[in-house]
Amino acid sequence: MDQPHDLKMLLEQVAGGKLAPDDALRRLQTPAEDDLGFARVDLARQKRCRVPEVIYCPGKTVPQIVAVMRALHAARQPVLGTRATPEQYQAVQRDLPDAVYHEAARAITLPLPAPVELTGQVAVVCAGTSDIPVAEEAALTSEWLGARTDRMYDVGVAGLHRLVNRLDQLRRARVVVVVAGMEGALPSVVAGLLEAPVIAVPTSIGYGASLQGVAALLAMLNSCVPGITVVNIDNGFGAGVAAAAINRLK
Amino acid sequence: MDQPHDLKMLLEQVAGGKLAPDDALRRLQTPAEDDLGFARVDLARQKRCRVPEVIYCPGKTVPQIVAVMRALHAARQPVLGTRATPEQYQAVQRDLPDAVYHEAARAITLPLPAPVELTGQVAVVCAGTSDIPVAEEAALTSEWLGARTDRMYDVGVAGLHRLVNRLDQLRRARVVVVVAGMEGALPSVVAGLLEAPVIAVPTSIGYGASLQGVAALLAMLNSCVPGITVVNIDNGFGAGVAAAAINRLK
Amino acid sequence: MDQPHDLKMLLEQVAGGKLAPDDALRRLQTPAEDDLGFARVDLARQKRCRVPEVIYCPGKTVPQIVAVMRALHAARQPVLGTRATPEQYQAVQRDLPDAVYHEAARAITLPLPAPVELTGQVAVVCAGTSDIPVAEEAALTSEWLGARTDRMYDVGVAGLHRLVNRLDQLRRARVVVVVAGMEGALPSVVAGLLEAPVIAVPTSIGYGASLQGVAALLAMLNSCVPGITVVNIDNGFGAGVAAAAINRLK
Amino acid sequence: MDQPHDLKMLLEQVAGGKLAPDDALRRLQTPAEDDLGFARVDLARQKRCRVPEVIYCPGKTVPQIVAVMRALHAARQPVLGTRATPEQYQAVQRDLPDAVYHEAARAITLPLPAPVELTGQVAVVCAGTSDIPVAEEAALTSEWLGARTDRMYDVGVAGLHRLVNRLDQLRRARVVVVVAGMEGALPSVVAGLLEAPVIAVPTSIGYGASLQGVAALLAMLNSCVPGITVVNIDNGFGAGVAAAAINRLK
Amino acid sequence: MDQPHDLKMLLEQVAGGKLAPDDALRRLQTPAEDDLGFARVDLARQKRCRVPEVIYCPGKTVPQIVAVMRALHAARQPVLGTRATPEQYQAVQRDLPDAVYHEAARAITLPLPAPVELTGQVAVVCAGTSDIPVAEEAALTSEWLGARTDRMYDVGVAGLHRLVNRLDQLRRARVVVVVAGMEGALPSVVAGLLEAPVIAVPTSIGYGASLQGVAALLAMLNSCVPGITVVNIDNGFGAGVAAAAINRLK
Amino acid sequence: MDQPHDLKMLLEQVAGGKLAPDDALRRLQTPAEDDLGFARVDLARQKRCRVPEVIYCPGKTVPQIVAVMRALHAARQPVLGTRATPEQYQAVQRDLPDAVYHEAARAITLPLPAPVELTGQVAVVCAGTSDIPVAEEAALTSEWLGARTDRMYDVGVAGLHRLVNRLDQLRRARVVVVVAGMEGALPSVVAGLLEAPVIAVPTSIGYGASLQGVAALLAMLNSCVPGITVVNIDNGFGAGVAAAAINRLK
Amino acid sequence: MDQPHDLKMLLEQVAGGKLAPDDALRRLQTPAEDDLGFARVDLARQKRCRVPEVIYCPGKTVPQIVAVMRALHAARQPVLGTRATPEQYQAVQRDLPDAVYHEAARAITLPLPAPVELTGQVAVVCAGTSDIPVAEEAALTSEWLGARTDRMYDVGVAGLHRLVNRLDQLRRARVVVVVAGMEGALPSVVAGLLEAPVIAVPTSIGYGASLQGVAALLAMLNSCVPGITVVNIDNGFGAGVAAAAINRLK
Amino acid sequence: MDQPHDLKMLLEQVAGGKLAPDDALRRLQTPAEDDLGFARVDLARQKRCRVPEVIYCPGKTVPQIVAVMRALHAARQPVLGTRATPEQYQAVQRDLPDAVYHEAARAITLPLPAPVELTGQVAVVCAGTSDIPVAEEAALTSEWLGARTDRMYDVGVAGLHRLVNRLDQLRRARVVVVVAGMEGALPSVVAGLLEAPVIAVPTSIGYGASLQGVAALLAMLNSCVPGITVVNIDNGFGAGVAAAAINRLK
Repeated sequence: MDQPHDLKMLLEQVAGGKLAPDDALRRLQTPAEDDLGFARVDLARQKRCRVPEVIYCPGKTVPQIVAVMRALHAARQPVLGTRATPEQYQAVQRDLPDAVYHEAARAITLPLPAPVELTGQVAVVCAGTSDIPVAEEAALTSEWLGARTDRMYDVGVAGLHRLVNRLDQLRRARVVVVVAGMEGALPSVVAGLLEAPVIAVPTSIGYGASLQGVAALLAMLNSCVPGITVVNIDNGFGAGVAAAAINRLK
Repeated sequence: MDQPHDLKMLLEQVAGGKLAPDDALRRLQTPAEDDLGFARVDLARQKRCRVPEVIYCPGKTVPQIVAVMRALHAARQPVLGTRATPEQYQAVQRDLPDAVYHEAARAITLPLPAPVELTGQVAVVCAGTSDIPVAEEAALTSEWLGARTDRMYDVGVAGLHRLVNRLDQLRRARVVVVVAGMEGALPSVVAGLLEAPVIAVPTSIGYGASLQGVAALLAMLNSCVPGITVVNIDNGFGAGVAAAAINRLK
Repeated sequence: MDQPHDLKMLLEQVAGGKLAPDDALRRLQTPAEDDLGFARVDLARQKRCRVPEVIYCPGKTVPQIVAVMRALHAARQPVLGTRATPEQYQAVQRDLPDAVYHEAARAITLPLPAPVELTGQVAVVCAGTSDIPVAEEAALTSEWLGARTDRMYDVGVAGLHRLVNRLDQLRRARVVVVVAGMEGALPSVVAGLLEAPVIAVPTSIGYGASLQGVAALLAMLNSCVPGITVVNIDNGFGAGVAAAAINRLK
Repeated sequence: MDQPHDLKMLLEQVAGGKLAPDDALRRLQTPAEDDLGFARVDLARQKRCRVPEVIYCPGKTVPQIVAVMRALHAARQPVLGTRATPEQYQAVQRDLPDAVYHEAARAITLPLPAPVELTGQVAVVCAGTSDIPVAEEAALTSEWLGARTDRMYDVGVAGLHRLVNRLDQLRRARVVVVVAGMEGALPSVVAGLLEAPVIAVPTSIGYGASLQGVAALLAMLNSCVPGITVVNIDNGFGAGVAAAAINRLK
Repeated sequence: MDQPHDLKMLLEQVAGGKLAPDDALRRLQTPAEDDLGFARVDLARQKRCRVPEVIYCPGKTVPQIVAVMRALHAARQPVLGTRATPEQYQAVQRDLPDAVYHEAARAITLPLPAPVELTGQVAVVCAGTSDIPVAEEAALTSEWLGARTDRMYDVGVAGLHRLVNRLDQLRRARVVVVVAGMEGALPSVVAGLLEAPVIAVPTSIGYGASLQGVAALLAMLNSCVPGITVVNIDNGFGAGVAAAAINRLK
Repeated sequence: MDQPHDLKMLLEQVAGGKLAPDDALRRLQTPAEDDLGFARVDLARQKRCRVPEVIYCPGKTVPQIVAVMRALHAARQPVLGTRATPEQYQAVQRDLPDAVYHEAARAITLPLPAPVELTGQVAVVCAGTSDIPVAEEAALTSEWLGARTDRMYDVGVAGLHRLVNRLDQLRRARVVVVVAGMEGALPSVVAGLLEAPVIAVPTSIGYGASLQGVAALLAMLNSCVPGITVVNIDNGFGAGVAAAAINRLK
Repeated sequence: MDQPHDLKMLLEQVAGGKLAPDDALRRLQTPAEDDLGFARVDLARQKRCRVPEVIYCPGKTVPQIVAVMRALHAARQPVLGTRATPEQYQAVQRDLPDAVYHEAARAITLPLPAPVELTGQVAVVCAGTSDIPVAEEAALTSEWLGARTDRMYDVGVAGLHRLVNRLDQLRRARVVVVVAGMEGALPSVVAGLLEAPVIAVPTSIGYGASLQGVAALLAMLNSCVPGITVVNIDNGFGAGVAAAAINRLK
Repeated sequence: MDQPHDLKMLLEQVAGGKLAPDDALRRLQTPAEDDLGFARVDLARQKRCRVPEVIYCPGKTVPQIVAVMRALHAARQPVLGTRATPEQYQAVQRDLPDAVYHEAARAITLPLPAPVELTGQVAVVCAGTSDIPVAEEAALTSEWLGARTDRMYDVGVAGLHRLVNRLDQLRRARVVVVVAGMEGALPSVVAGLLEAPVIAVPTSIGYGASLQGVAALLAMLNSCVPGITVVNIDNGFGAGVAAAAINRLK
C-alpha cells in the first residue's frame, strides 16, 4: 500500500544492513489500526486521506463510542461523533467531560489537540428550516476539518429574492454546499449563478412522492446546470468532508 | 346518467302521454356513441366535458384514424389526432385532404366546423429546446380548445435572467403550463413568481437517473411552492386540456 | 425580481433627483422577509402569489410555530398551520388564545385580519371515510383562501349510484377536487361526467401494493380522461391552493 | 404424485401377482412427457389441470413450434400457440396446413381433435381499442377451453354510459374478464355492479408514468371493490384460462 | 343504474298513472345508502354484488365501527369487521354483546340474521405458520359468505411431501386459495397439480429483499402455471370474497 | 418423493408377500412431520438436506417456540432459534433451562444431542462494526452445522491495509462469507484476491439511498469479480447454511 | 499484495545480497498485466483466483476480442469469450482459426493449452426451454473450468413429476445450478430435496410484471429453503464460475 | 440578477445624469442571450459560471447544432458538442470545416478562440474498457475547460495491483474522477487511499440487476469513505465540469 519511494528506501536500508529483514517485514505489514475488539480504529486514515475516522453514533453503545473517541484522542486526532442523540451525549460526557454537543448538527466533538486556524471559504446554503440539521452537520464538519464556513439558511426557490439578495455573499465562497429536500431545485438555481463548485445534499424532507428524499436526490443528479455533484440523502457529513477537501486546494 | 331536472321533465312528458314509454326508454338508454366495430366513438363527450374525443395515433392504422376522424367530423365536432408521424399524416391526407399537420406538435387537425375566436390567455413555458414537442402539443391543444395561447420556450433555470426578463409577459396569463425535463425545477421557480394557476408537465428528457422523466415528475409533485398541479410525463395534450378548461372559467 | 414598469418609475425618480441612489438600491434589494433566526418568513409571498406563507407543523417546536404565526399576523396576513396535532394546538393556544383548531383537517388558523366573503364554488369529493382528513385539509385551505366550498364525502366507485345521485350538486362547482386512495379511480369517473377542471389528490390509504399511495398517484396520472391534474400524495393543502387559484379567475 | 386410491389399487395388483414389480415401478415412474430434445412436452398436464401445454411463440424457431404442436396433436390434445407473428404463422402453415391464425389475438390453433360444445358464459370487457389484442387473447383462450364467450370492447370509464347500457348483457356472464390499461379503473367500476367473479387484466397501454402497465396493475390490486383477482400485465392468456376454469364449475 | 326491464315497468306505471312522476323520480334517484354523517353505508351492495359492506377497522373509532355495524345489522345484512385489534373488539362488545372475535383472523362478526348452510368446497392452503393470520382471514370470509371451507396450513415447498400427502384432500375443493410469503412459490406448485381455479395471496412475511411482500406478489403474477389469479399483499379478505363468489357458481 | 431404488425394494416386498399393501401404502405416504396444530415440523429435513428445521423467532409466541424446539430436540435434531430477543430467550429458558443465548448473533441454541467435531474452515469477514450481528449469525450457523469458523471483523475497503494484512489468514478458508452494508464493495475486493468460493451478504446498514440494503445487494449481484454468490439482505443465517454445505464437500 | 512468506524470502535475499534493491523493487511492483492500450489484461488472475480473465464480447470490436484472446493464449491460459454473436465468431475465426463457437451458450473458446480431465460433478437444471441459453453458459463455463457437468433442462415446477423422476440423477451432483425465469420457484423446490449447495440463476424470461427478471431474482433471494445463493439475472457465467470453485474443493 | 456593487454604480450614473433611465432600464434587462428561434443561447453563462453553453447533440438536427455552434463561436466562446455520432460530425464538418471529432469521447469541438495553457492536474480513472467512452468524455471536458488531465484506464477492483501500482501517479492529482459500472466499488477503494477530492461517475455498464447503472449509482452514493461526490449515470461531461471547477481553485 506504500509508495515506491518509501519502499525503495526501506529496501536499501535492508540491503545496507541498517534494517533487519524481520523489522522491514513488520513495517511493511504494520497494521495502522487500534484493535478494540469490536472495532479496528483506522488510525492511518487521517494521514492517508486528511480525514480521521469519525464515529457514526446510531446503534452504538455509549462504551463503544467512548472507547473509539479515546483511541482517536490518544492518537492526537480530531474527534467527531455524528447523529448523536442528547441522551448519548449526556452519557458520553460522564466519561469525557470535555465533550461538546452541537445540538443543531446532532454531533459530539472533543476539543482539537491543537488550535487550528480556519482558512478559505465554504458556504452552506439550505432551502427550508426543516433542512437545517443536515446543513448544520455539513457546516460543522467543514469547520472541524479547518474550513472557514458561512451559513445561509431558509433561502428556497419559492421566494427567489431571498437568494438573490445574498448573491454577493455567496460569490465569496470557494465551494458551496446546497441542502434541499422536496423537489431539490435549489442547487440548480444556485449553480446557475456561480462559478464555484457546488455540492448538492438532498434531504428526506417532504412527504408522499418525495419517497424519503429520493425525489430530491434524482432532481439533483439530473440538474440542467452541469458540474453539480451530489452526496447521499441527508449526508451533511459527507458534503462537509468534500467541501473541506476542495477548500483545502491551493 | 342524466340530470334529475331532465329526468323529471321526461317523466312528466310520459305521465302526460306526450311521450311513449318505449321512446322514453330509448332516450334514457340511447348510446351517445358511434359504433365503428373496432371502436365506439363517444360523441357525447364534447357536450359532457367540453372536450371531444381525441385520436391517439400510435398503434392505430390509417383506416382507423380516418374512420374516427370522419365520425367526429360528421358530428360537427373538432378533430385532433395526437402523436401522429409524418407518414401517418401523409396517408390520412389522401382520404381527408383538408387535414393539417402540426409538425412541432406531432398532431393532425381538421378545420373546425365553424370559426372560433380565441379567448383568455394561456402561457406555455418550457425549459429547453428538447422539451418543445411536448410544449407545442400543450399549446396546440389549448388553442384547439379555444384559448389564446402564448409560447415562451428555452427559459430554463440554468440562466434565470431569460425567465425574469419575461415576467411581465408571463403575468398576463390566466393559467401557465410549465414544461421541463431533467430536474424539473422550472415550475417551482415560475410558480414562486406568479399568482396564476400553474400546471407542470414533466418530460422524458434526460438520461441515466432521470428514469425517463420520473425524476422530473417526482420533483414537480414535491414542489415547495404550493398549488402546482401535475400531469403525466410528456403529456402535453392533458396539460392543454386542463389549461383550456381553467382558462374558460368566467 | 420586480417588473419593468416599476423599475422604470424608480429609475426616473432617481434621474429626477426624487430618490437617492442609496434609497433606490435599498428598495431594489429590500428583503421582503422577516428574519426570525431559524427562519426567514417570506412576507411578500401573499402579494406575489396570493397565498401567504403557511406553517407545516410536523417537526417544528411550539415556539417556532408561534413565532411564525405572530410574524404573519403582525403583517396582517391570514395564518394557517397544517398537519398540527391536538397537542401542538393546545400549546399554541396558550400563546395565541384566538387560535382555532380544525380537528378533521388537522389544522390551526388564526382569525382573518378582516372578514372575507367566500366566492365562486369549489367542490371537494372523496372516495372513502379514511380519505376525509386529506379532503378536509383541501376544503379548509380552499375556504381559507376565499372560495365557497362544498364537501361530498364517501362517494367511491364501489357504489356508483352514490356519485350519480349527486351529479347536479357536482355540476355547480367551478373546480372539483377529488380525493381517493387505493386504486384512485374516482377522479377518472368524476372527470368523465363534468366539464369543470378536476384536481386529483391521491391518499396513502390502502395496504400492500398500494405502496403508501403510489398506486393511486400513478392511476391518477394515467387517467384515460384528459385534463385531470394531480398533486402529491395526501397533499390536500396543495389541492386547496390550486382550487382556490382557479376558482378566483373571472 | 398419484392419488392414494390409485396407489392402493396398484399395490393390491402387485400383491395379487397381477402386476409385476417392474411394471408397477414403470407406472409409478412413467414420465408423462414427450422428450423433443430441446423440450419435454408435458402431456399429462391436460389430464391433471384441464389445460394442455400451450406454446408461447416469441423466441421459438418455427421447427420448434411445429414439433411441439405435432406432439400435442398426436396425443389428441388441443393446440394453441400464443403471441405468434403473422410470419411465424405463415411458416407454420407450410408444415401444418390446418393451422388457423387469429389475427386480433395473435394466436395459432389447430382444429380440435373432436368438436366441442361451448358451455356457460364468460364475458370479456375492455376499456379501449388499444386493449383489444389482450382482450382477444383472453376471449380466444376461453373459447378454446370450451367456454361460450361474449366480447364487449371499448367501454372505458371516460364514458360510463357505454358500460351502463350493457349492464344486462354483462349480468348474464358467470365470470367476467376486464381488460384495461392506463389507470386501470374499469375492473373496479364493473365489479361494483355485478355479483359474478371478476378477473382483471392490466395492459401495458399508456405512457410515461404508466410504467409499461405497472400503474394499471397496482390499481387493480388495490381495488376498493373486494373480490377482484388480477393476472400479469398483458396476460390475456392467463385470464382466459382462469375464466374457463371458473366457468367450468357446476 | 337499474336494468332496462325495471325501467320499462316503472315508465309504464308512470304512463298508466299508477305512479306519480315525483315518486318515479324518487325511485330512480333513491340512494340505497344509510348516511351516518361520517360515512354512507352502501346497503345495496349485498343485493348488487352478493357481498355486504364490510368494516375495515384500522383507523376507525369504536363508535364509528359500532354505528356501521348497527346500520348493516338493522338492514338484516351479515356483519364483518376486518383487521380488528383485541382492544377494538372489547370496546365493540360493550355496545354489541353478541359480537364474536375471531382471534387468528383478527375479525369481528355479528351472528347472521338467519342460519346459513355452508355449501360447495373452498380450500385455503398456506405455506408457513407466519402466514396463518392472512389465511384465516380468507377462510373466515369465505365461510361468512356461505362456503364450506377447508384449512391446510404449513405445507410450504421446502418440504413438498407435506403437500403431496394432502393432494386428495386438496382435489376435493372447487376453488383453492393459496397463501404464501417469501418467494411465493406455493401457488405455482399447487396449481400445477390441480384443475380447480387457484387464487394466490402474497403475504408480507419475509425480510430484506422481500420488500414487504412485493417479491411474493411478483412471483405469483409471473407463475409458469397459467390461470392463477392474484390479490393484493396480505389481502385474505379479498381472496375469501373471490373464492366464495366462484364457489357459488352452479 | 422417494428414490426408485427404495420404491423397487418396497414393491418387491409387497410382491413377495413380505409387506401388506396397506403397510406399503402407509410407508409411501408417511408424513415425515410432527403436527403441532399451529405448525407441521418437518422432521425429515435434516435427513434430506442436512439442515434441520430452524425457528425464526420474530412474531412467534414463546409457547410456539418452545413447542417446536421440544419437537426437534425429541427427534434428536440440533435446535436453533434465530433473531430471538433477550426477552424471548429469558422466557424460553424457563421451560428449557439448557437453552443458550448468543447475544451478538441474536440466537438461541440447545445443546447438541451429541458432541460434534468441527471440520474444514469457513471464514466470516465483515466490513464495519454495525455489520457484526449479521456476521455473527452467519458464523454461529456455520459452526452449529459443523464447520470450523474464523471471524474477521471491521476490515472494510475504506482502509484496505486492514484486509491485506489478513490475507494469509483469509487464504486458509475453504469458503468465505463476506458481510457488508452501505456500498457493498468488500466482497468484490476479497474475491479478487482469493480462489475460494465467496458468499456475499448485504446488510441494511446505511441511510438514505442505501434503501435498507438494496444498494449493497445490487452492488454484490453486479460484482466485476465472477463467481460471487449472494443471499438476501441481513440473511446471515442463509449464508451460514450455504457455507457449511460447501465446507462439507470432500 | 503478496503474502508475508514471499515477502520475507525476498527481503532475506536482499539482506543477503542475493537480490539488488532495484530488482526487489521491480518484483514488488511488477504489474502482472499485459497492457494492450485499450485494456490491461490481468494475467495474474488465474494464479490468484483460479479463473483467468474472460472476454465479455458485447460492445467490443473484433480486433479487441482477438487481441485479448491472443494475450491470454500466449500466457498459456484458457480462453473464453461470452455473449458472442455468430457474426463476432465468424470474424474472430478468421484470425484465430482454432476458435470454437458454442451456439447454445453464445460463447467462443480456444483449445486449452493442455488437455484437462473433468472432475467432480456439477448439475445444471433449468425450468423452461427459454432458459437454455443461460443454462448452457453456466454448463460450458463449469466444464471449461474443469468440472464434469450434467445438464437437466425443461423440468419446471408446472409439472413436478419431470423433476421428481430425475431425483437420483440430481443427487449425484456435488453442487447444483438452478436456472429459472418467471416466478423463479424451481431453486426452492430443488433445494428442498437435496443436501448439495444450490446456486440459483434468475433469467429475464417472462413479461409484464417479471420486470426483466427482477421478479425471479427477488423470489430466489427470498427462498424459504435456507442456503440457496443467487447470482445476477441471466448470469450463467457467474454461476458456472461459482459451481466450479465449489466443485474443486476436496 | 446583478450584484449590488454594479447596481449602485449604475444608479449613481443615472443620478448623475450620465446614463438615461431608458438606457439603464435596458442594461438592467438586457437578455444575455442569442435568440435563434428554436433556442436562446445563454451567452452570459461563461462569464457567470466559467462554463459556456454546451450542445447536447442527440435529438438535434445538424442545422440546429451548426447554428448554436456558430452563435457561440461568434461570441468568441469555446464550443463543445457532446454525444455526437460520427454521422452528425460529418454533416457538421461540411458547414464548419474546422470542427474536430473526438471519437472515444463522442464529442465535437471547434478550435478555441485563443490558445489556452492547461494548468493543475486532474486524474480520470476508470474500471473497465467498457467505461472508456464515459471516462473520455470526462477527460476531454476537463481539458477543454483548461485542466491538465491524466487518464488511467482499466484499473478495476478485480485486480487491485493494477491500481496500487499507479498510486504515485494518482497522488499527483488535485482532483480525481473515478468512472465505474457494475458494482461501482472503485471510487470507494480509490478515495480510501487519497486525500484529493474524488468525483464518482456511475456508468450503465452491466446487465440484469445493474438496472442500467442504478446499482453503481447507489453504491457510490453509499460509499463508506466520506467525501465522495457523485454525478448522474454516464455523465462524464458533468464530472469533467466539476473537476475543472475544483482544479481551478488557487
